[in-house]
Amino acid sequence: MKEIYTIKNGELYIEDLSAAELARRFGTPLYVYSKQAVTERCGEIRETFLERYPGRAHASYASKAFLTPLFARLIAEQGLSLDVVSGGELYTAMRGGFPTERIAFHGNNKTIEEMEAAVDAGVGRIIVDALDEIDLLEEICPRYGRVQPVLFRITPEVKAGAHDAIQTGHRGSKFGIPMEEHILYPLIERAIHSPQVEFRGLHFHIGSQLFEAAPYLEALDHVLAAALEIRRRFGYSVPELVIGGGFGARYTDEERLPYAGFLDPVMARVRAWREENAFEPELCVGIEPGRSIVAEAGVTLYTVGSVKETPGGPKYVSVDGGMSDNIRPALYGAKYAATIANKAGELPDDVVTVCGKLCESGDRLIDGARLQCAARGDILCVFSTGAYGYSMANNYNKIPRPAVVLADGKDAQLLARRETYADMIACENM
Amino acid sequence: MKEIYTIKNGELYIEDLSAAELARRFGTPLYVYSKQAVTERCGEIRETFLERYPGRAHASYASKAFLTPLFARLIAEQGLSLDVVSGGELYTAMRGGFPTERIAFHGNNKTIEEMEAAVDAGVGRIIVDALDEIDLLEEICPRYGRVQPVLFRITPEVKAGAHDAIQTGHRGSKFGIPMEEHILYPLIERAIHSPQVEFRGLHFHIGSQLFEAAPYLEALDHVLAAALEIRRRFGYSVPELVIGGGFGARYTDEERLPYAGFLDPVMARVRAWREENAFEPELCVGIEPGRSIVAEAGVTLYTVGSVKETPGGPKYVSVDGGMSDNIRPALYGAKYAATIANKAGELPDDVVTVCGKLCESGDRLIDGARLQCAARGDILCVFSTGAYGYSMANNYNKIPRPAVVLADGKDAQLLARRETYADMIACENM
Repeated sequence: MKEIYTIKNGELYIEDLSAAELARRFGTPLYVYSKQAVTERCGEIRETFLERYPGRAHASYASKAFLTPLFARLIAEQGLSLDVVSGGELYTAMRGGFPTERIAFHGNNKTIEEMEAAVDAGVGRIIVDALDEIDLLEEICPRYGRVQPVLFRITPEVKAGAHDAIQTGHRGSKFGIPMEEHILYPLIERAIHSPQVEFRGLHFHIGSQLFEAAPYLEALDHVLAAALEIRRRFGYSVPELVIGGGFGARYTDEERLPYAGFLDPVMARVRAWREENAFEPELCVGIEPGRSIVAEAGVTLYTVGSVKETPGGPKYVSVDGGMSDNIRPALYGAKYAATIANKAGELPDDVVTVCGKLCESGDRLIDGARLQCAARGDILCVFSTGAYGYSMANNYNKIPRPAVVLADGKDAQLLARRETYADMIACENM
Repeated sequence: MKEIYTIKNGELYIEDLSAAELARRFGTPLYVYSKQAVTERCGEIRETFLERYPGRAHASYASKAFLTPLFARLIAEQGLSLDVVSGGELYTAMRGGFPTERIAFHGNNKTIEEMEAAVDAGVGRIIVDALDEIDLLEEICPRYGRVQPVLFRITPEVKAGAHDAIQTGHRGSKFGIPMEEHILYPLIERAIHSPQVEFRGLHFHIGSQLFEAAPYLEALDHVLAAALEIRRRFGYSVPELVIGGGFGARYTDEERLPYAGFLDPVMARVRAWREENAFEPELCVGIEPGRSIVAEAGVTLYTVGSVKETPGGPKYVSVDGGMSDNIRPALYGAKYAATIANKAGELPDDVVTVCGKLCESGDRLIDGARLQCAARGDILCVFSTGAYGYSMANNYNKIPRPAVVLADGKDAQLLARRETYADMIACENM
């Protein structure tokens, strides 16, 4: 496998493209994705999960990490299914021609209109999360002549993940149906007996940026116990179990665990449990990787502007974007690494704070960044911005959102053009 | 003065409009601004500052808090000037017909293109922040045949404000020119002698959400000392001084200080200082209120969806928006108060967590909200969302941005229409 990020003639290359040349061609800030990086991660999922456990494994890309119509198409070509969490994500996927039967629709508070759109589109699964969602589906499905396959998202008592905001699988979370007997089982009974929905199984998601299998196994035990209880109560063996996403990505120096490091133990546990409990028929295990597919595949290129040494404070290297294109440092204290693309061959012997151009002190992208000596006009490359960068981008300070390019060998394909000022205020009356 | 928010027939009214009726008419989520609330605050600034200190006082609305073309026009009609911090804000203001000579252009890292646009547009002031900005203006101004009036933003050593991210006036801030002698005065000397710029004076901004005059007075002393030093060194008496914004707004139970509470002490200090130092000619003091004008003037209306009690956790009332339309709770831990508009006459005897519909645990709008008993279909009104709500809105989870309405007595004017799915991905290639 070729290296994706290399240094040639002292400059940073992304696949076979000079980062500085991409910046000149498309302008900055610019999100650049490596197609090879995306397909390598998808390939790893196919080879070490889908093909290793044929008929028992299923993988959906969690599109909230990054989605455009063309990117949805790439995911479809890679043989993955798709998770969406809103009508807008469903719309975007459909504009990319994503097969709707391979789409699962999530959300703690789907609107009626979104549920109607999902049922109408024929999405493969709706992940039931609200307590009255079965009621609503029973009202909606007949109007579209559909029997809707559903999973129940449940909330096992596991706290896992790097940041409070991305710890989602614990008791008291806004997500999922509480596992309390008097809440969960009556709802499942209704779903099993409803002519309007097809109850397919259980779903959980425990958090983000995980680097070990243990929390998955812990949650799995809760959910497998629930599967046994469902069989005991209703004589129904769930055919599906989704263990969510959360597979860690490398931002700076994290050691990424290969998918098999999470999934082989999970599959072994499920297999042992099935044998132990004579659980028939086969149980298909689904995963929902998002960040782990796209985070490292994406970078952001910026042009350096003001460089300022402050007495008693850091040396600031300001770039022409910031929390408008990457809010994660301000929101989660997220860490990133960077290099000066046009000086990538030089030693990074300066220590600086990389900050954005927004009128807010919190608009700092990297504290203590080790960089080559920066000057106005340099191209700064921030690595591992492929997840939750473009997808959380905003127009704070009325800054247009950057373009998005997919690098593919020597080719660069525009996934999204840069917003113009006119685009940005297209909804605002004059 | 009429009350802006009232309860009639058990329902919440904004001016003379039923909130629930606005929600039905324009859909939710919906930002609603009260024109009366905006004009009252602008009126207070005129009466207790601009008219109390004629020729010595100047006020610019800080548009990053909230800006659309029509809103820029309203601010112009109110007799205020305008601060912008980007080419996009300048563009938006100009689309609203805002007189460019009343616009000041800010930013720690203005791009060359933005400086060109500002000079070309004939903005009244550029607030110099980067160390090479005078060099750049000297190159740019002749091309547009302009002599550009400038202020220098400097960084007095004052830490003030509610949140690290909005403490901006301290040493080591990314903003402003350090007050170190060997940095500040040579730059000022260049500006004084440059034929391309007209040096008008000094600017500082110390932070946000302030409720006392003391930090302004502390910073003022540093800046007045600098003004004396400039006169001593260069025989030049600066005619202008801008003390920034930061005037606190009420989100929940803060006690808002009237503008005069900040500004009378400031003006008294400046007057005493001028007399003491025989400082001639007159010194005009500028302020840059943003949040204090719009925060309390705006609310967000949501439709309640899922209501969920969690064992060992809070009761969740989910709404059809969240961190996509108001990221401040997740970003700053910001607090808000709310009511159920269509039940505003009932006792708020339930305690719930108001959360959004986004796929992220951090998407909680209010913890421990005291609300009337909520049910699907209710209209929830979150107060004091007028600043940094719409302006920081994003399409996370591909959720379209809400519409913005200006309530004016019985009339409701659309400042911005709701984004459609098609608007939202207009830049994305298919």
